[in-house]
Amino acid sequence: MHDTAFRGFASDNYSGVHPEVLAAIAGANGGHQVAYGDDDYTGHLHEVFARSFGDPVEVYPVFNGTGANVTALQSMLPRWGAVIAASTAHINVDEGGAPERVGGIKLLTVPTDDGKLTPELVDREAWGWGDEHRAQPLVVSITQTTELGTAYSVEEIRAIADHAHERGMTLHMDGARISNAAASLGLPLRAFTRDAGVDVLSFGGTKNGALLGEAIVVLNPAASEGLKYLRKLNMQLSSKMRFVSAQLIALLDGDLYLRNASHSNAMARRLRDALDAGIAAGEFPGLSFTQATQSNGVFAVLPAGVADRLRERGFKFYDWDAAKNEVRWMCSFDTTEGDIDAFVAGIREELARAAA
Amino acid sequence: MHDTAFRGFASDNYSGVHPEVLAAIAGANGGHQVAYGDDDYTGHLHEVFARSFGDPVEVYPVFNGTGANVTALQSMLPRWGAVIAASTAHINVDEGGAPERVGGIKLLTVPTDDGKLTPELVDREAWGWGDEHRAQPLVVSITQTTELGTAYSVEEIRAIADHAHERGMTLHMDGARISNAAASLGLPLRAFTRDAGVDVLSFGGTKNGALLGEAIVVLNPAASEGLKYLRKLNMQLSSKMRFVSAQLIALLDGDLYLRNASHSNAMARRLRDALDAGIAAGEFPGLSFTQATQSNGVFAVLPAGVADRLRERGFKFYDWDAAKNEVRWMCSFDTTEGDIDAFVAGIREELARAAA
Amino acid sequence: MHDTAFRGFASDNYSGVHPEVLAAIAGANGGHQVAYGDDDYTGHLHEVFARSFGDPVEVYPVFNGTGANVTALQSMLPRWGAVIAASTAHINVDEGGAPERVGGIKLLTVPTDDGKLTPELVDREAWGWGDEHRAQPLVVSITQTTELGTAYSVEEIRAIADHAHERGMTLHMDGARISNAAASLGLPLRAFTRDAGVDVLSFGGTKNGALLGEAIVVLNPAASEGLKYLRKLNMQLSSKMRFVSAQLIALLDGDLYLRNASHSNAMARRLRDALDAGIAAGEFPGLSFTQATQSNGVFAVLPAGVADRLRERGFKFYDWDAAKNEVRWMCSFDTTEGDIDAFVAGIREELARAAA
Amino acid sequence: MHDTAFRGFASDNYSGVHPEVLAAIAGANGGHQVAYGDDDYTGHLHEVFARSFGDPVEVYPVFNGTGANVTALQSMLPRWGAVIAASTAHINVDEGGAPERVGGIKLLTVPTDDGKLTPELVDREAWGWGDEHRAQPLVVSITQTTELGTAYSVEEIRAIADHAHERGMTLHMDGARISNAAASLGLPLRAFTRDAGVDVLSFGGTKNGALLGEAIVVLNPAASEGLKYLRKLNMQLSSKMRFVSAQLIALLDGDLYLRNASHSNAMARRLRDALDAGIAAGEFPGLSFTQATQSNGVFAVLPAGVADRLRERGFKFYDWDAAKNEVRWMCSFDTTEGDIDAFVAGIREELARAAA
Repeated sequence: MHDTAFRGFASDNYSGVHPEVLAAIAGANGGHQVAYGDDDYTGHLHEVFARSFGDPVEVYPVFNGTGANVTALQSMLPRWGAVIAASTAHINVDEGGAPERVGGIKLLTVPTDDGKLTPELVDREAWGWGDEHRAQPLVVSITQTTELGTAYSVEEIRAIADHAHERGMTLHMDGARISNAAASLGLPLRAFTRDAGVDVLSFGGTKNGALLGEAIVVLNPAASEGLKYLRKLNMQLSSKMRFVSAQLIALLDGDLYLRNASHSNAMARRLRDALDAGIAAGEFPGLSFTQATQSNGVFAVLPAGVADRLRERGFKFYDWDAAKNEVRWMCSFDTTEGDIDAFVAGIREELARAAA
Repeated sequence: MHDTAFRGFASDNYSGVHPEVLAAIAGANGGHQVAYGDDDYTGHLHEVFARSFGDPVEVYPVFNGTGANVTALQSMLPRWGAVIAASTAHINVDEGGAPERVGGIKLLTVPTDDGKLTPELVDREAWGWGDEHRAQPLVVSITQTTELGTAYSVEEIRAIADHAHERGMTLHMDGARISNAAASLGLPLRAFTRDAGVDVLSFGGTKNGALLGEAIVVLNPAASEGLKYLRKLNMQLSSKMRFVSAQLIALLDGDLYLRNASHSNAMARRLRDALDAGIAAGEFPGLSFTQATQSNGVFAVLPAGVADRLRERGFKFYDWDAAKNEVRWMCSFDTTEGDIDAFVAGIREELARAAA
Repeated sequence: MHDTAFRGFASDNYSGVHPEVLAAIAGANGGHQVAYGDDDYTGHLHEVFARSFGDPVEVYPVFNGTGANVTALQSMLPRWGAVIAASTAHINVDEGGAPERVGGIKLLTVPTDDGKLTPELVDREAWGWGDEHRAQPLVVSITQTTELGTAYSVEEIRAIADHAHERGMTLHMDGARISNAAASLGLPLRAFTRDAGVDVLSFGGTKNGALLGEAIVVLNPAASEGLKYLRKLNMQLSSKMRFVSAQLIALLDGDLYLRNASHSNAMARRLRDALDAGIAAGEFPGLSFTQATQSNGVFAVLPAGVADRLRERGFKFYDWDAAKNEVRWMCSFDTTEGDIDAFVAGIREELARAAA
Repeated sequence: MHDTAFRGFASDNYSGVHPEVLAAIAGANGGHQVAYGDDDYTGHLHEVFARSFGDPVEVYPVFNGTGANVTALQSMLPRWGAVIAASTAHINVDEGGAPERVGGIKLLTVPTDDGKLTPELVDREAWGWGDEHRAQPLVVSITQTTELGTAYSVEEIRAIADHAHERGMTLHMDGARISNAAASLGLPLRAFTRDAGVDVLSFGGTKNGALLGEAIVVLNPAASEGLKYLRKLNMQLSSKMRFVSAQLIALLDGDLYLRNASHSNAMARRLRDALDAGIAAGEFPGLSFTQATQSNGVFAVLPAGVADRLRERGFKFYDWDAAKNEVRWMCSFDTTEGDIDAFVAGIREELARAAA
């Protein structure tokens, strides 16, 4: 029904399911398994996640990233709690108000240059404890890798975690692209989560080759309460959960999560490197970048009109900040070197035409 | 990882994915498709549902039944609205309070004998419009087939719909097992939904052979508002929606929904008939039934202790009302005649032993 | 601007402010006092309530009864909690869905004959702990005196409290008319609250002569969390709180709460006694009572049409269950013996006319 | 019980009740009046507000400003709506998250210099309509006078209103200090509300001499829906409403609202003028101002430590931004010239000491 040969740079969730994940779904089929999480696959998840993240660990598969984030944050907060986050955080700009409306959560947002909080930025909103007029800042939420394609180092996360913990707050990580972070940092998942002080994690599978499936991962049980109930009442409890869990196992039990993420990062790197080289050679007039390329996304500024002409040629991607002619180019597990090279050629041609 | 030969009678969501549905998922894979519903599969859904339910129709795929029900009801109600439902309704007893907590919806519940509302039962709670102290009854919700395995006739639905509409209320149908109703009534889906006055429907796929996937189906656009936004903020918007839509197409575009449902109904019928025949022959001492068997579930009362002994033998099923020794036996699309016959034999033996 | 001579039997909040309460408001005026509860009057509240209810006690003045109930219950429950209550409870039928919508609370309601729960009735809904599909029953809420004018005895409350506590639940009392209960039982407030096992209380002032003012009273600090914050975010934090607190002090520091309640109870008693005597004398054909008269309300059944004719004569009161010709007659702190006698005479005449 | 001679500069709700308002409360006492708003006083409110604001007008008395704001905004928004507001808005920083938690409202906030939005500032968040990932900006909320003591001109409000309306948004005004704005602008209330394009208003009484009482005032009925129900379910429906309405009548039926506000504005003016004169004379080393003084508040910067020493001398006021040594001095209807002069003298002494 659709063109299976088409790939673009719009989003890493425009791609489909990695064949190994699809095989895992098929492998979990047949016979009857207890619904709602008492199946063999979900039972195996603890072991798989404990191997990657250490123990103690609790794993709650959910449907999507918004569900993971809102439910995780609710479990970390009393009804009067607030979350400090970058103003570019997905929870602030891309979840339709779900944190506020479903979660009853106040977000205290801080502008950043690169999507990354720092202890100093956290402090802009980390005050007012004990004052009932102020929503109480009790959780800091960071995104790794960020919505701007940047990655926190272990030290940066540790600094935020220490800062938060010293003030009685806990640390949530939105890991919709956590696998890209692992590939980018060249570190095991545990090194920049548990070992860096992260208390609760939203682990993303969908953007890294799953059909659908994220997991709330509790690394510090003292920082989270009631997820069993919250997941259900937030409408995130899958009945045939074995098929969600089987996907997470497929990604994490071996190295598929890392292979996929390393590949998509490498494709973004290839794109950035080709363009950087061209710029150095004076070949891409008007092209510049707004962010470091540390994962699978490239953020660029193009001369006015060039983005639309590239799209007319069939290259698909989104404006990030149309007012600034800023665009976002995302790579996926299935992006090929040929895709990149054709795109670079297209950019070259359109920039040349624009400059003519 | 699991025993693919095991099947029980616990729930129709203990079964896995029908092979044709799995093939449809695989068929939708490959290449890039726009996320969040602008893909070719979701685009085709309107046509598929219009063929079954008539036009105008709006179709919003979601993750699960709770998500479908809460989101559908929210779209039908102002913030001050209430829903009249049977006290046995899934929205009342099995959704962890999601309608109240996420939806902000007051449920006005009415006890029934068989899970079915009537105009007279609706009237027990259909009053108080204009009184701000009372949550305003503005929607009636019925389940088809019901949580007790019974099916509304077209005339019964029409009577409730007319009654509701005359009082300024609209009608929601929780169709988690709507395919079983179609099979039971021997009628096209449209006959007992749109043509009987249903305004908004939760269409169920998961219990009828899908991996995961339900749809909110708006039959009367005047009765629903804002589903585009509500689905997202209720955390029910799938990014790779093509794979949810492909499942719904697999079920509904041909006759798979009906084949699966007819089969599971027939298996329940086989079970009930065998037991009824045995009772008539004096062979099942202490066995009786609490509900008519009109779909894929059988509700029975066993002598004390017999349920547990059957479970010890490996037959899996749930108590429905443990205080009354009432049990629920559910059949699924993959239940076999052999499963039924072995279960009947087991029941026979245990009842005989209990009576000895 | 209004007829200060008119009094009816519609509700105990149709009456105004007792002169001593009004004097207390005036007495709290002048100069500046810290807002939001750090004033001298609110500071004195702890002492006043500790004298009546014993220590430890926390007192949180709020605006109205709905605010007190919803905020108190939220403080007693996690986000996944549910409250077992009589189906006639004010929180279920008269608060516009505020417990569900603002509180995110599921109500598990039980029909009763007289508005009073019992351990047996509690058990109809006290089950399913640990099952995430079921809203978790963690609080029992009773109303004293009830919405039907009946009063729990100390022993009845103690039995419910013990039953709840044994099952890990806590006990809330909606005391919108708690002063009427004290007068009815002839007991100190402490005897049927703290000493009977009540954990958290909504203490009512408005229906007993205040302009406005209720208080959430925490008798068991382990049963409640976060009221400081919840009161604010539930929009129940008064800025000039000294004037709310001064009213509560006026009622509770001396015996005004008891004088007012004893009087309104006595007026209801006078009404009931006169009618009972008349019935015994065969003088009130068609009049009967549906509830015991244990506080300031009388629930009666009249022949069809008589209620409307009484209202046409200027006696104001509400139908309670119009379908059964049941009416409610409420007495207030300012109801006079003359009001009662005139009403009895009116009833006598209209019943005679109806029987003629 | 308290020192009725003490007055400070902490807040205009530290003051008590104006004697004329107290007299109005007493005047509304006696006899029975229908509860929940069907009383004679509330009935008269429409006329009183129509005289000040023009017709059509709907008036809904509520308990407090947070209740007015959240309930008004809910009535203006679908469940998926968002509100554009200054980041200093009371709804954002001083309501404990009530708009988000109780209202389910996403706030889209914009930094400002003086607490005032402009069309350009509105545009920073006025985008993304039709994109379900973004909370839909459908209301602009401004505060008049602002939380920083500044006042919008008629032209400034009109520009925002036109801008909002052209984009399908409506305009809410938080008028907790609307009387101070009327006094500051020297204009009738209507001139800078209805006639300037305001759709719904939170009218404040408490900070201007009432015991308690605000009103939601609907100037454009097409911009608001369901306030009757929302007020109740948001726990803002007063039973003895006559006493709230009587206060609003006392303020607005004559010129008390203007007398009180003019006086408190004049006291702030006196303070500012005295300090400005002193600065011009070189007498207040280290003192400066951060905002224009256009109503009853003065925002100043003091040398480090001076604020605390003034407080030790018994002058009460709050830090506004402690990091910047910024303080807020509020005047009230009962602030006297002597209060101002003594405070100026105290400031003079402490600044001199600090400079010594």
